[in-house]
Amino acid sequence: MAEETELLARGLEIVRKLWGEREGGTEFPAQKLAPQFFGLVPSFVFGMFWARPNLDLRSRSLCTVAQLAALGRMDELKAHLAGALNLGIRREELIEVLMQTACYAGVPAAVSALNAAATVLGT
Amino acid sequence: MAEETELLARGLEIVRKLWGEREGGTEFPAQKLAPQFFGLVPSFVFGMFWARPNLDLRSRSLCTVAQLAALGRMDELKAHLAGALNLGIRREELIEVLMQTACYAGVPAAVSALNAAATVLGT
Amino acid sequence: MAEETELLARGLEIVRKLWGEREGGTEFPAQKLAPQFFGLVPSFVFGMFWARPNLDLRSRSLCTVAQLAALGRMDELKAHLAGALNLGIRREELIEVLMQTACYAGVPAAVSALNAAATVLGT
Amino acid sequence: MAEETELLARGLEIVRKLWGEREGGTEFPAQKLAPQFFGLVPSFVFGMFWARPNLDLRSRSLCTVAQLAALGRMDELKAHLAGALNLGIRREELIEVLMQTACYAGVPAAVSALNAAATVLGT
Amino acid sequence: MAEETELLARGLEIVRKLWGEREGGTEFPAQKLAPQFFGLVPSFVFGMFWARPNLDLRSRSLCTVAQLAALGRMDELKAHLAGALNLGIRREELIEVLMQTACYAGVPAAVSALNAAATVLGT
Amino acid sequence: MAEETELLARGLEIVRKLWGEREGGTEFPAQKLAPQFFGLVPSFVFGMFWARPNLDLRSRSLCTVAQLAALGRMDELKAHLAGALNLGIRREELIEVLMQTACYAGVPAAVSALNAAATVLGT
Repeated sequence: MAEETELLARGLEIVRKLWGEREGGTEFPAQKLAPQFFGLVPSFVFGMFWARPNLDLRSRSLCTVAQLAALGRMDELKAHLAGALNLGIRREELIEVLMQTACYAGVPAAVSALNAAATVLGT
Repeated sequence: MAEETELLARGLEIVRKLWGEREGGTEFPAQKLAPQFFGLVPSFVFGMFWARPNLDLRSRSLCTVAQLAALGRMDELKAHLAGALNLGIRREELIEVLMQTACYAGVPAAVSALNAAATVLGT
Repeated sequence: MAEETELLARGLEIVRKLWGEREGGTEFPAQKLAPQFFGLVPSFVFGMFWARPNLDLRSRSLCTVAQLAALGRMDELKAHLAGALNLGIRREELIEVLMQTACYAGVPAAVSALNAAATVLGT
Repeated sequence: MAEETELLARGLEIVRKLWGEREGGTEFPAQKLAPQFFGLVPSFVFGMFWARPNLDLRSRSLCTVAQLAALGRMDELKAHLAGALNLGIRREELIEVLMQTACYAGVPAAVSALNAAATVLGT
Repeated sequence: MAEETELLARGLEIVRKLWGEREGGTEFPAQKLAPQFFGLVPSFVFGMFWARPNLDLRSRSLCTVAQLAALGRMDELKAHLAGALNLGIRREELIEVLMQTACYAGVPAAVSALNAAATVLGT
Repeated sequence: MAEETELLARGLEIVRKLWGEREGGTEFPAQKLAPQFFGLVPSFVFGMFWARPNLDLRSRSLCTVAQLAALGRMDELKAHLAGALNLGIRREELIEVLMQTACYAGVPAAVSALNAAATVLGT
């Protein structure tokens, strides 16, 4: 549909900054089950929200990492930690964000997030 | 106890940067019920975590706002929005953080956070 | 922007079926604080998702009520209970959805939802 | 105990409609650890709630799928997706319920639910 | 129905130990909206679970207080704090349970619980 | 840093009562990624909270198990179930705590907790 082109274009520009040409990958079983869903995500998550003015990408990335850690969404956390590194956020900064999660979502939330992060941030 | 003095001092320095001399206020019923708890908070939340190196205060503040919005903790969200303004984070930046919450915690989480924020960020 | 017009039009058609010409109202403090956010909601929640084929509006409405009750989102629950009544879903059906929430989200979640519902469904 | 017979009978009738003669299966480690718990579940979840009048089984099934997706309960989600198919709910309808979860519980909740669903709904 | 009589009798015995003859009260709007729900609660929460052997009432009460604080269910938390006092659990013990919640559900969860508790436990 | 010695000493005394000389183990990937975090946990979780007076260790352990089950924190739940056994809490008591979770956090929370527990409590 022609009307979604611009939203999608804006969203994919952000997606490329976070993950290069991978564009979200094709690896999840969900992507085969509901390809229409994954066609919408770049438009609305990245095109409607991340592409807005008034907040820099670094801050958007850190806030997303913080929220995914607090909510216990480990698959997305790993993806966004990799994206954060691609934006130039340092490994040490990301570890601090995850540690501080203990204060607001409890120690087990921070431990789970740090465990998930170990596969992305190395040890 | 001498050993807790330094943690507390480091924590209170952060508290002052966020909220001036208010130091958390004395207004909550909980503070009368469990004063010992509120003696611990500056030491461990701010002294043990926020006072650590490797991540700037602006980023710690934005991540905290993001997590409190995602977790639906409205009293603390209001307090940390006020603290963020005191650190020089702009009102427009904070609104973006809260809007983007819709992607990761759902639209109702973002609406609740924006409603709570209206009392702090004005309209 | 032309491309968002169609999404918005599809979304607003659903909004009108749920709430008549009210279109979400203008009463929340958040709507003054972040009008841009409330411009996006009809496009993406209702235009991108609810307006899709393959599932009838009655089922979408019941599932939304069920999720809002389970997640403890009381303001949106009340709005969607009113919308459900406008779609012709019966009061007794909605009470059953809320009662059954006890099995999956715990008894307190069901009690909170039923308390919120009392203001919409009458007693 | 004789007194629980009728509740249990009503509950098991629902269980059979959802999963045939499997009756919840015997595969979970929890069932060996706490068999008394799994003796109670058909009585109270299915006997006390699902067996009540005023709401059809199709709607109860869709609402349960919606809540389990929103709450991130993946084992039960898979079981109830299978049950929903047994009730005659179509695969496409279930995918829509899971996609719409993105609006109310966030995109990661929908992705997790769609990933879990892929093993039941095929690809 | 005869079979539910015994469950209910066992449940109401526990209810009386927690709250005397009040038996849950009649004050909530939900109780007018869905009286059938509140007829089930004593049977299944108290009759099926709390009345079981192998764990003393004091421990059941403390664990319930702990869970309601962690989950942010403030109305039920207040009711169960009052019930805990009636069982002879000391005010100081309950405050410790709520403070310790900070470790597992985050500091804001503990603060909210202590605020709610102040109305029951006095200051 | 000298100042944290006493908090740490008090915390490690509790850790030893729960898990013997293991002291939290060294097995998690998170421990390699963020050793500084795991240096803080005994000080603040166990030194600042668990080591406080006014509530016995048995009650602290039961409440922790209850909260971890309600919050779905399975790794920590397993660790604290093992700790509870070391304190002399009986297997049957722990199973009751997990079963009762169904009332406050929903049946799926109880099932997940019982599944996780099966590896620690045996079958």
